[in-house]
Amino acid sequence: MARVKRMERVVALTKQLVDHPYQLFSFTYFCKKFEVAKSTLSEDVLAVRAGLEAYDLGRVETLAGAAGGVRFIPCHSEKANEEFLTELALQLAEPERILSGGMIYMTDLLFKPQLVMRLGEIIAQRLRHLEPEYIMTVETRGIPLAVFVARAFNIPVVMARRVGQITEGSTVSINYVSGSSKQIQTMALPKRALPSSARVLVIDDFMKAGGTARGMAELAEEVGAKVVGKAFFIATQEPEKKMIDDYTALFVLKDIDTENRKIDISPL
Amino acid sequence: MARVKRMERVVALTKQLVDHPYQLFSFTYFCKKFEVAKSTLSEDVLAVRAGLEAYDLGRVETLAGAAGGVRFIPCHSEKANEEFLTELALQLAEPERILSGGMIYMTDLLFKPQLVMRLGEIIAQRLRHLEPEYIMTVETRGIPLAVFVARAFNIPVVMARRVGQITEGSTVSINYVSGSSKQIQTMALPKRALPSSARVLVIDDFMKAGGTARGMAELAEEVGAKVVGKAFFIATQEPEKKMIDDYTALFVLKDIDTENRKIDISPL
Repeated sequence: MARVKRMERVVALTKQLVDHPYQLFSFTYFCKKFEVAKSTLSEDVLAVRAGLEAYDLGRVETLAGAAGGVRFIPCHSEKANEEFLTELALQLAEPERILSGGMIYMTDLLFKPQLVMRLGEIIAQRLRHLEPEYIMTVETRGIPLAVFVARAFNIPVVMARRVGQITEGSTVSINYVSGSSKQIQTMALPKRALPSSARVLVIDDFMKAGGTARGMAELAEEVGAKVVGKAFFIATQEPEKKMIDDYTALFVLKDIDTENRKIDISPL
Repeated sequence: MARVKRMERVVALTKQLVDHPYQLFSFTYFCKKFEVAKSTLSEDVLAVRAGLEAYDLGRVETLAGAAGGVRFIPCHSEKANEEFLTELALQLAEPERILSGGMIYMTDLLFKPQLVMRLGEIIAQRLRHLEPEYIMTVETRGIPLAVFVARAFNIPVVMARRVGQITEGSTVSINYVSGSSKQIQTMALPKRALPSSARVLVIDDFMKAGGTARGMAELAEEVGAKVVGKAFFIATQEPEKKMIDDYTALFVLKDIDTENRKIDISPL
């Protein structure tokens, strides 16, 4: 390759890092790719870090030692995240989102990739200390959020299904009580999807009584995995007593006043 | 903001562009954000373009005029894409993926965000001329791929469901014949999900006879939308006659030899 200017190299380095959140690249990998000495690469990494920090676009971490390298961690200031969520709460509170049964229409928002990508990054930023190795969700509406939380952590998603599918080999299944409807339902996971002792973060779009989330946690534990956390796009304020203990949510839905067509929802 | 070095500004510009594929940013937006004159910004944009092109990491387009601006288009050389798909075909052909019923286990791959992101970019690159405004898929396994194709095009996803859900308001539904099982099934779409005359690209993970894809196309047309294309992760070679006409696929599955435990699959 012809000699490339430093600026072009730093652009390429930025793209590779930010496109692969949490992925650790060895210095050797980049030195070879860019045909530069380690000292030159170190300066380039510092430039990327400075540029991202100056504009609140995330953090670059370097890890020393033989197993070391460089990686990008998506994050924004608390203020920027709050502004983003407050703006989104206004959209969620639009009266035409009111559906029968005390629910709100939100599928359109949960299927906008740019928006969900940011939500996934916010959840990952808040739950980084949990060090999950897998994201678990249940079909269907929480899948995009689960995928973008997983992207931010550079880990895979496993999906539980409401019924076992013949296309996925042998499955483990459990019966669980849906907290809202009090009905007994079945949830299944392909046996090969989750290694035992894996650290699992449960993600779903909506949590009311917590029955589905509890089902997922039980299913994960059934295959020997460890549930390290549960996070939701929206959790309702009522019922106050949930079927799961610790959880986090991006929004709390306090009330839907169908008569006056008002939705009371705010970032948590 | 204190005066920031050019290098840092170019890093931030790179991040913003590559994080928002296809999104057109006005020059004014960046001039204001970076507090620079338009001539300076133009030089910065040229630097980002040169860096990405030098390492085959995508393209930066500038559009002139009042409605103009700058945007990032994810793409790689045909050679790089072919290498990526050939590598993935080897993984798909692992004998332990053989399931009963002439299917292969691929959910693990379809739920790895980094991998699916690249697949989404390849599909978007190949189908750019179709100019879709919406991606349509049906629950469940094709959702991550649909979301990443949508991300690459900067458009939303609409999801058809096998049964109408009470949480999504009024729905349009159709009955369709599943090509493989010959059974009559129902598929539904929330009425508000898709505006009429929208240009829709149908995405799914697996296509055998094409019954499900045909159902999606009919459902889209039922609400007045226009289906501009259909793309799949895997299409089977048999049956040769499909229930849909034009389509593209990343892989063609030629044969599963359960006796000798061999999967014959290759990039298309």
